[in-house]
Amino acid sequence: MMRIDLNSDLGEGFGPWRMGDDAAMLDIVTSANVAAGGHASDPETMFATLQTAASRGVVVGAHPGYADREGFGRRVIPMSPAEIGRMVVAQTGALATLAQLAGTEVRYVKPHGALGNLAAADAQVADAIAAAVGALSPRLAILAISGTALEQAARGRGIAVFSEIFADRAYLPNGQLVPRSREGAVLHDPATIADRLLAFLDSGLMPVIDGAPVRLAAQSICVHSDTPGAVAIARDLRERLTAAGVHIAPFL
Amino acid sequence: MMRIDLNSDLGEGFGPWRMGDDAAMLDIVTSANVAAGGHASDPETMFATLQTAASRGVVVGAHPGYADREGFGRRVIPMSPAEIGRMVVAQTGALATLAQLAGTEVRYVKPHGALGNLAAADAQVADAIAAAVGALSPRLAILAISGTALEQAARGRGIAVFSEIFADRAYLPNGQLVPRSREGAVLHDPATIADRLLAFLDSGLMPVIDGAPVRLAAQSICVHSDTPGAVAIARDLRERLTAAGVHIAPFL
Amino acid sequence: MMRIDLNSDLGEGFGPWRMGDDAAMLDIVTSANVAAGGHASDPETMFATLQTAASRGVVVGAHPGYADREGFGRRVIPMSPAEIGRMVVAQTGALATLAQLAGTEVRYVKPHGALGNLAAADAQVADAIAAAVGALSPRLAILAISGTALEQAARGRGIAVFSEIFADRAYLPNGQLVPRSREGAVLHDPATIADRLLAFLDSGLMPVIDGAPVRLAAQSICVHSDTPGAVAIARDLRERLTAAGVHIAPFL
Amino acid sequence: MMRIDLNSDLGEGFGPWRMGDDAAMLDIVTSANVAAGGHASDPETMFATLQTAASRGVVVGAHPGYADREGFGRRVIPMSPAEIGRMVVAQTGALATLAQLAGTEVRYVKPHGALGNLAAADAQVADAIAAAVGALSPRLAILAISGTALEQAARGRGIAVFSEIFADRAYLPNGQLVPRSREGAVLHDPATIADRLLAFLDSGLMPVIDGAPVRLAAQSICVHSDTPGAVAIARDLRERLTAAGVHIAPFL
Repeated sequence: MMRIDLNSDLGEGFGPWRMGDDAAMLDIVTSANVAAGGHASDPETMFATLQTAASRGVVVGAHPGYADREGFGRRVIPMSPAEIGRMVVAQTGALATLAQLAGTEVRYVKPHGALGNLAAADAQVADAIAAAVGALSPRLAILAISGTALEQAARGRGIAVFSEIFADRAYLPNGQLVPRSREGAVLHDPATIADRLLAFLDSGLMPVIDGAPVRLAAQSICVHSDTPGAVAIARDLRERLTAAGVHIAPFL
Repeated sequence: MMRIDLNSDLGEGFGPWRMGDDAAMLDIVTSANVAAGGHASDPETMFATLQTAASRGVVVGAHPGYADREGFGRRVIPMSPAEIGRMVVAQTGALATLAQLAGTEVRYVKPHGALGNLAAADAQVADAIAAAVGALSPRLAILAISGTALEQAARGRGIAVFSEIFADRAYLPNGQLVPRSREGAVLHDPATIADRLLAFLDSGLMPVIDGAPVRLAAQSICVHSDTPGAVAIARDLRERLTAAGVHIAPFL
Repeated sequence: MMRIDLNSDLGEGFGPWRMGDDAAMLDIVTSANVAAGGHASDPETMFATLQTAASRGVVVGAHPGYADREGFGRRVIPMSPAEIGRMVVAQTGALATLAQLAGTEVRYVKPHGALGNLAAADAQVADAIAAAVGALSPRLAILAISGTALEQAARGRGIAVFSEIFADRAYLPNGQLVPRSREGAVLHDPATIADRLLAFLDSGLMPVIDGAPVRLAAQSICVHSDTPGAVAIARDLRERLTAAGVHIAPFL
Repeated sequence: MMRIDLNSDLGEGFGPWRMGDDAAMLDIVTSANVAAGGHASDPETMFATLQTAASRGVVVGAHPGYADREGFGRRVIPMSPAEIGRMVVAQTGALATLAQLAGTEVRYVKPHGALGNLAAADAQVADAIAAAVGALSPRLAILAISGTALEQAARGRGIAVFSEIFADRAYLPNGQLVPRSREGAVLHDPATIADRLLAFLDSGLMPVIDGAPVRLAAQSICVHSDTPGAVAIARDLRERLTAAGVHIAPFL
């Protein structure tokens, strides 16, 4: 029986502001990447998100990002790898202790936005993050994209690492994402999204934008929470997968 | 043999800014109350302070405060007790995980400024903080002023609690501090400060501003780090205590 | 012919976050109280809001609030009246210069949330705000609630002051708002809201929760932008007023 | 008679923190580049700095920087030129209105740190800043380094522009600063600093690290406020210049 996790970036509000419909998404996904006070969130938002996730049985991971709420963690803030490691430790530590208070546990780390992109490409940054995660707890895993520097760094330090693919993003023949600037980079039709992922789960082969399908490993599918129609796309995907006999369950 | 701890609020810089001379103070005190990103500090400042404390064998505690750097945690920010508890958890959690990375451990919590004053006076806030500390770890202690709501709340929850007195503050007959607004509230002469504390350590009786000395319990003396002459006062006190045969050692 | 202004608090996003539907509201109101970087907003959000307001011919005012985004300006941050005055000047100054860049002009000031409540009740705070507004420009007006300390302070300093009433809030016999904690404080039915305001515009008498209608002055009606159904309520009100022959126009 | 201005970056504290000895520096310099709430400062710090500058007859300029207090504006935060322009407007606007309240006037703009470096090198950023300054007021000047993109952009928009040289930095044969990473980039000896500047004021030729002196234009000398010995170096320089008959006066 095929089995896959659905993950989404959640808890990305701040103070009075909300981003997307977390309550709805927490009924759909099995793993929640919870913002940790860097690109978004604050203790109240973290705690409320962790409590809701716990009440729905959703596994939680930390989603650290650059401490740049104004830029939502989408801008690279120049920092040394060591500084990045300490930032990841501080954010994950805050979230992990709030998770204890909420009766749950942070099980993995997935870096956000510009930090995630840099960790995918830069071996030193990737290693600093992997070292930070390893220093926090031997129980913590990393959620990464297959083939990235972050995945390699995690393996190099003996940290459990899981792979994700993106529900609504087109792929290149080398297994990387089509840049958002290129036409066709983002898929919008729920049926196309579900068809493509079902075919992938069946074959292990991901259709690409320009060539033969590429073999990818994935324990989780990332679904967006803050795009127009995000909840509908995610719910539709979950229903299609379930109807096709796929078991939707956390990777941890 | 008499024995006492010296504690001070340290790591209270932020970004490029410093407050007091932490390096000098960490050669004098035996316990450091380290700012945790609320009223002051950031991951870099926390980590550097923790590393220096660890290298000097200074015990570290968390010094959480209102998330109000502009007001340095000296203003009461209206929050419910539950919100205060979560704020304390998030700050202490960030500091505690950075301490792991720095090869040391957060052993106790002492709330800062306006939060400390409120926790001393308000039973609900005190209990929220005690509950937060208890939820974080059964190993964490609380450093409080004898006779306060915070001390009672800690005892009520079975949390180890230690008492501090202030090196440079005058006391009232009821054992509370003379308000800063009153003349004579703050002592400035190093010799007077040391004389008074030696007498206290010998007798357990603290001179008061207007009446007979009051019996106080204390496992630690709080010395300021950011007032004019702070380092000289603290160094002088340590030398006087040591010369009088007092053993200066952490309370934990 | 009856004439009234419709005002609303707008531009209350921050970074990636939005609050309410500003674009829709700017098609309805005639005056926009634009957040100025204190309780909400940042230069990008301010500029975009100012530009949209300018393009719709909506008059803009500054909506300064406590520099407390996490609390959305709804918490009293302890500050002296002089500090409050300087905070109001800094926020209004930033907004006013961005308004120049956006081809419009800040015409009035209306304090937000907890600052607005304090300015309504505390003569010293009210005067500090009035003095700040007067120092900025002799052309700037103040938008206040009739009978408040802020209105008096503005008059005392010769600053043009205009009065607002609230579309969806019930009134007490003394002309003040029914506290939100009391049942019936907030009106939700668009028809009731419109009926009541039409009656008021006709007679100058506002129905109260417990007694005979009270005579109120008002040059503007404040409509909420961020409550459920806010846009529909505001649009409905505008249509009802217009249909009844009321001329909807800025008070400035 | 030779004449020159002395400028320094001042008001770079934040909340409870101070950077350098502003009071001492304001007795030495004739122009103060006042931080405007981006890389440093807040309304209280701005106002106090402006008031002290006004009381000493020191001309004030705005010193806008990236809104990154943690990095003190020394990190490039990715932003479009238009976003940079709006950030400069908002910061300068806040400072300018506080200056009115303090009885003085912002006369010029000098970008700080990483923003200054980028404005010196990038024509689009330089033009965005020049456009922002021009939109604020036709009376505002720009203080720049001779030969930079910022100087050119200011000239291109008809904005008065003045040139500064650095008291304690070595120069390259092309008139640019020796990068800090290179040995000899920073001068520390007050006598050497003063000798070199006197020679320059006399001849218009600046000694360089590796070759023949280069001809530079300068209406102002920038002296640091936050390096060790900053006050002594600045005071010594002022005394040496005055003793040599140089008239120290604002460029505006």
